[in-house]
Amino acid sequence: MERKIRNLTKYALIEDIGSGDVTTEATVPTDSRAAAIILAKQDMVLAGLEVCQEVFQFLDPAIEFTSFVRDGDRIRTGTEIALLSGNTRALLMGERVALNLLQHMSGIATQTARYVEKIEGLKAEVLDTRKTHPGLRELEKYAVRIGGGKNHRFGLYDGILIKDNHIKVAGSITKAIEGVRKKSHLLLKIEVETKTLDEVQEALATKPDIIMLDNMQVDMMREAVFLIHRQALVEASGNVTLETIRTIAETGVDFISCGSITHSTAAVDISMKLK
Amino acid sequence: MERKIRNLTKYALIEDIGSGDVTTEATVPTDSRAAAIILAKQDMVLAGLEVCQEVFQFLDPAIEFTSFVRDGDRIRTGTEIALLSGNTRALLMGERVALNLLQHMSGIATQTARYVEKIEGLKAEVLDTRKTHPGLRELEKYAVRIGGGKNHRFGLYDGILIKDNHIKVAGSITKAIEGVRKKSHLLLKIEVETKTLDEVQEALATKPDIIMLDNMQVDMMREAVFLIHRQALVEASGNVTLETIRTIAETGVDFISCGSITHSTAAVDISMKLK
Amino acid sequence: MERKIRNLTKYALIEDIGSGDVTTEATVPTDSRAAAIILAKQDMVLAGLEVCQEVFQFLDPAIEFTSFVRDGDRIRTGTEIALLSGNTRALLMGERVALNLLQHMSGIATQTARYVEKIEGLKAEVLDTRKTHPGLRELEKYAVRIGGGKNHRFGLYDGILIKDNHIKVAGSITKAIEGVRKKSHLLLKIEVETKTLDEVQEALATKPDIIMLDNMQVDMMREAVFLIHRQALVEASGNVTLETIRTIAETGVDFISCGSITHSTAAVDISMKLK
Amino acid sequence: MERKIRNLTKYALIEDIGSGDVTTEATVPTDSRAAAIILAKQDMVLAGLEVCQEVFQFLDPAIEFTSFVRDGDRIRTGTEIALLSGNTRALLMGERVALNLLQHMSGIATQTARYVEKIEGLKAEVLDTRKTHPGLRELEKYAVRIGGGKNHRFGLYDGILIKDNHIKVAGSITKAIEGVRKKSHLLLKIEVETKTLDEVQEALATKPDIIMLDNMQVDMMREAVFLIHRQALVEASGNVTLETIRTIAETGVDFISCGSITHSTAAVDISMKLK
Amino acid sequence: MERKIRNLTKYALIEDIGSGDVTTEATVPTDSRAAAIILAKQDMVLAGLEVCQEVFQFLDPAIEFTSFVRDGDRIRTGTEIALLSGNTRALLMGERVALNLLQHMSGIATQTARYVEKIEGLKAEVLDTRKTHPGLRELEKYAVRIGGGKNHRFGLYDGILIKDNHIKVAGSITKAIEGVRKKSHLLLKIEVETKTLDEVQEALATKPDIIMLDNMQVDMMREAVFLIHRQALVEASGNVTLETIRTIAETGVDFISCGSITHSTAAVDISMKLK
Amino acid sequence: MERKIRNLTKYALIEDIGSGDVTTEATVPTDSRAAAIILAKQDMVLAGLEVCQEVFQFLDPAIEFTSFVRDGDRIRTGTEIALLSGNTRALLMGERVALNLLQHMSGIATQTARYVEKIEGLKAEVLDTRKTHPGLRELEKYAVRIGGGKNHRFGLYDGILIKDNHIKVAGSITKAIEGVRKKSHLLLKIEVETKTLDEVQEALATKPDIIMLDNMQVDMMREAVFLIHRQALVEASGNVTLETIRTIAETGVDFISCGSITHSTAAVDISMKLK
Repeated sequence: MERKIRNLTKYALIEDIGSGDVTTEATVPTDSRAAAIILAKQDMVLAGLEVCQEVFQFLDPAIEFTSFVRDGDRIRTGTEIALLSGNTRALLMGERVALNLLQHMSGIATQTARYVEKIEGLKAEVLDTRKTHPGLRELEKYAVRIGGGKNHRFGLYDGILIKDNHIKVAGSITKAIEGVRKKSHLLLKIEVETKTLDEVQEALATKPDIIMLDNMQVDMMREAVFLIHRQALVEASGNVTLETIRTIAETGVDFISCGSITHSTAAVDISMKLK
Repeated sequence: MERKIRNLTKYALIEDIGSGDVTTEATVPTDSRAAAIILAKQDMVLAGLEVCQEVFQFLDPAIEFTSFVRDGDRIRTGTEIALLSGNTRALLMGERVALNLLQHMSGIATQTARYVEKIEGLKAEVLDTRKTHPGLRELEKYAVRIGGGKNHRFGLYDGILIKDNHIKVAGSITKAIEGVRKKSHLLLKIEVETKTLDEVQEALATKPDIIMLDNMQVDMMREAVFLIHRQALVEASGNVTLETIRTIAETGVDFISCGSITHSTAAVDISMKLK
Repeated sequence: MERKIRNLTKYALIEDIGSGDVTTEATVPTDSRAAAIILAKQDMVLAGLEVCQEVFQFLDPAIEFTSFVRDGDRIRTGTEIALLSGNTRALLMGERVALNLLQHMSGIATQTARYVEKIEGLKAEVLDTRKTHPGLRELEKYAVRIGGGKNHRFGLYDGILIKDNHIKVAGSITKAIEGVRKKSHLLLKIEVETKTLDEVQEALATKPDIIMLDNMQVDMMREAVFLIHRQALVEASGNVTLETIRTIAETGVDFISCGSITHSTAAVDISMKLK
Repeated sequence: MERKIRNLTKYALIEDIGSGDVTTEATVPTDSRAAAIILAKQDMVLAGLEVCQEVFQFLDPAIEFTSFVRDGDRIRTGTEIALLSGNTRALLMGERVALNLLQHMSGIATQTARYVEKIEGLKAEVLDTRKTHPGLRELEKYAVRIGGGKNHRFGLYDGILIKDNHIKVAGSITKAIEGVRKKSHLLLKIEVETKTLDEVQEALATKPDIIMLDNMQVDMMREAVFLIHRQALVEASGNVTLETIRTIAETGVDFISCGSITHSTAAVDISMKLK
Repeated sequence: MERKIRNLTKYALIEDIGSGDVTTEATVPTDSRAAAIILAKQDMVLAGLEVCQEVFQFLDPAIEFTSFVRDGDRIRTGTEIALLSGNTRALLMGERVALNLLQHMSGIATQTARYVEKIEGLKAEVLDTRKTHPGLRELEKYAVRIGGGKNHRFGLYDGILIKDNHIKVAGSITKAIEGVRKKSHLLLKIEVETKTLDEVQEALATKPDIIMLDNMQVDMMREAVFLIHRQALVEASGNVTLETIRTIAETGVDFISCGSITHSTAAVDISMKLK
Repeated sequence: MERKIRNLTKYALIEDIGSGDVTTEATVPTDSRAAAIILAKQDMVLAGLEVCQEVFQFLDPAIEFTSFVRDGDRIRTGTEIALLSGNTRALLMGERVALNLLQHMSGIATQTARYVEKIEGLKAEVLDTRKTHPGLRELEKYAVRIGGGKNHRFGLYDGILIKDNHIKVAGSITKAIEGVRKKSHLLLKIEVETKTLDEVQEALATKPDIIMLDNMQVDMMREAVFLIHRQALVEASGNVTLETIRTIAETGVDFISCGSITHSTAAVDISMKLK
């Protein structure tokens, strides 16, 4: 992951700084030094310390970064997250990008943790989706893990998920699975999307590794889980909210995927102050 | 903007598709053709049609893309946004990235429009900030404009905003402004952040183009506007919500900046269906 | 795959042409046009037509490329593979890179086909490995498929293969598998390497998807297959040659992986002549 | 050469590791440390130590790499080539790419050395060609030098070689050479390809620096060498094998070029073991 | 600026060194060490030390670089500018690129300083333009500042300058300014080009920040300055030479822009000698 | 050369346009169309039409570009060079970059032609050097050829020039040449720099292809030419001006190299007007 963090960091800094920080370069001497505190301004599950540190050290490898907490810690408003010291220009020029990432990732971890808590004690795990912000998928999926969720595939390249459109074009679930068995490489599992109990039956016959129940009512989900009877893993998908997730989990599914933990989560409030 | 859209599109597709879409390549023939509809599943202000089209045409320039609405239109749930036809693989491989961008940008435009409506009839304009998702700033600022907001600077390179930290390091507002006047180029304006009425007074003496009132109470803002008395433009910043924005606008400020319209907005619901 | 082909093509052309083809630019007018034939000079299984065409059309999109055979065809010496016509400079500047790729890929497909023939009628399939030429893996794995082989994972990112070193560091096969089950995403299978029957027993208990028999004697392999008894797929690896492969296949393994089909295969002879 | 090594190393690691080594990251702790030995498993002329070291140190600059032999050494099976110590993840993630390069380059050096030995005592030198694996040319040409061969030009940009196709388009050898003399820069020599003694005569009149005898029978070569009579250097090309090279060299040519030492050489066997 | 310097340095070294310095690699041992002096061979205002140092340290970070003067110093012929010591190959391979940059930048600083001296005691400042060498703009604008000039905008992205063509397309100055006021972001000033006194009048009514007087005779300029009467800043542009600049400055304009200080300045003479 | 032109064009446009042309985007509608004339405003030898066209067509491939003259033509002030028509935004956004390149290249061609004229009727040819603007070398060397000059090597990679520093490190001219003969590839010539007649003698004994006379007085040059007596080509270098070049040429040297034609040439005056 380090290389991707480094590339993203670089790109984000170029986006923000471009040809230079005209304000800082005109008001802060090249060799000025300072210390700064990064501070939580609300309760949260923290995620993103490594990329936050990388932003500043990309600008100046000599910046010292001491963190007082760790990714995954549940911290309260007022918690000092990290102390930075070093070149003042680098501190000021990295501030916005570092906070944008830290606030966004911690927002995702915090929201994921809320979902995970709701289904405590049940077998089901919270899964993420590919509904991420372009360019940020790896960081967002990391934040989901930090919040207690489990990752679904990272992209179209490292997992097979046969959806309704694939089935429609292939002709049937059986034909789609045959194609996939023939062309894919040795180490990929196969998941199939179903919308009705008939489709669940048809899918079962092809022995997929996982069956997805897409947008089913809770009653139908329960029947599907009964039908599948551990011959495949089961993923519930669609209309998952903090209100509905426990009921869904109680149907006995293995996984519940949830797009909003990545595409619609509010940033948490974190600030940086020069000391 | 086209080059950046193209770069982002490419990067987002690489992130999602990587070494290939193993499912689609195994179930959909190379030369299969299909049509698809992009559909609004909630009310929204639409933004992002161009980048949505670019995603598909990056994968296959021969895909036909016909849109029935335009960026900025307020559309109702059920509205058909666009019709695509062409290579089925390209349609399926581009779907997720295209929707991720369109849902995110329309989410921002929709939320911005809500803020703009709240202050209808008043002079103030809604401004965005640099609190954006790394890599997506230009698209997000475009969505803000589509929603009726006005852009603040795009980055540290194309605008001068002297904040408390700069003033602290420079020694005083006056010294900070002197530095900036000497080193910056001909065509950049100067904005200064203030937190108290004393700072507003001090700033005024240096004749900045814009004075920012940072996290002031509404009463103090009103006094600040009175003090400034049109000698500079005035921007209010901090704790702006749908509940507070009208009261802030009524103090007579020229601009109200709002981070949450870019960093904490929910994606709107949009889907794509093969016909 | 198209993007990677395009990137590789570009890189290979830069490597060969650099600041320009000093000979061609000095002897061939800019607007000279010609036709050329690509010709098989030995029997082979052809692979690589698409990338061959891409090389010339990268230099000049207007070059016409008509192929008379297809990837996977078994062709005889003297067969005309393709007819090109267009800008003479582009034809001459692309020739070496295009042939280098076509000869290498066809060499791999041809050699793979020899292995596949040796085990005709048996269940086992020929697998490739990660022993490829840096930068050419995707093309080489494509050539293996064209020759009738099956692909193992494409890299460390899209498949889990627990080797002796991982087990050593993790402490035991059980601990290694536990770690992998917890951290990997939903859609990846798990393969474990074993060197003895004891290790096969231990691995079996952890229910991996695939068990690799590494460098085992044929007798031991046969016993391992008996022990595993279809509870996992079985891959034989190590010391596979055209002489030994049938005996290995007869042990009942599902897959036989073979590094030499990618890392030690001779290029086949193909030439290009201006008409 | 260092920059190219670094670029290639980076590219090869990205190709293999992609979004991460899912097995190693799940079984080996971030801070685990280990030592490993790289071991020759057959006799060989070693080539590629520098790029092998670079692969590991690209992943972690803190890895210590101590080699016990040097590029160009003839080593026996069982020889310890190098000792590595450092972060275990980096050792395991770099292993395959490092060995792929070392085995391939040593394979080329070993095969080149066989050709060079065959013509010991004669004036002729073994030359490589542009028949290389795309992306690996510089490393392959380096390995040829290590094996005792001499390099021909590195690409179309740094040497002039007028082939039959150029002559055909230019109209005659004389016209082709005139064009080249006029347009090429000061420091490039000129080589002309000939297929018959008439062409050798015609070429001689234009005073090229080198004359290539392409696919000539040995008798014709001998006559050509007599005709040329040291007025130009002479390169023999085509159908060069370990069986034929000495006879060719005895004709008195200065250089013998040989495509198979780069495009068709088997990798030598080298392994890495954690201690 | 550091990132751009680094990118440019890298690109310039690749352009010059390409696949390697064949002369140095064949005559200088890998581990040879030497010291070298960089020497002024004419009087000049020095500019470019940082990029000069970067060139050598890009090739070898261990090279020691001690400068005896600073950017902006007026130095005499014979002055020792810097002492380098370290790897001999790196010194020889970096020499030409380092000197090309240092000579070019110092040439610009020296010429700018001549213009600035000519208008000593007057209010006007010397401005640069966008008439720069592609790829070198940032370095050239830096050299202008070092020579005592002031920068105009860095590109089309960070400043608004409405020229005759924009006005023609928009319909009128008023319409052009309205468009710009609506679409541009908060922190950009607006400059308008005028060619006649009527245009100056028309421009004034739209309250731009700066009015450019393009190619006006000195008398007309004087009248324009009178008309504008400090309601906007005034820039004179066109036909500025060392002979005419003082007369232009005496009209009372605030800025005088001059393309030749970047696009037509001679390199100053600087050499490097191994000690 | 086309790829380099395209890369440079892209880079130069990014440098100038960055995140967008704020003025043009606010004053010119997206679909506005216009025609423009590129006009010579002084006498010149024209060079750079292709790259000029590329700039505009990079921004919009649909722009029509009709040129009325060709590279190498001597044109008078007032000559219409080219007519463009197409999207107005693309015309205005490409104008500055296109003219910067065309003016610079034509400046070099024009100045080179002046040097070439000075030595009309004599054998000597005008050579360029590596004293070019970083990033622009290929275009500058092209402009030299257009002006009637001949190119020296393009970089350190495609030609061998042994300078005093190499000789000093190698120990002697003989040793330096031996090293070079052993390591360099087949198709590179060898040039040696000399400063005295003794060095010329020493160099001659090693049979280089070219001997450079560095900074010699004209009398010494004449003697050197006599000594060399056609056993090698002869290049004069150092202190070449329009005043001295004919005298130097009359010594009988083959080539005269001249840094100022690339590093110190004034841009010629060319403008673009919307019709």
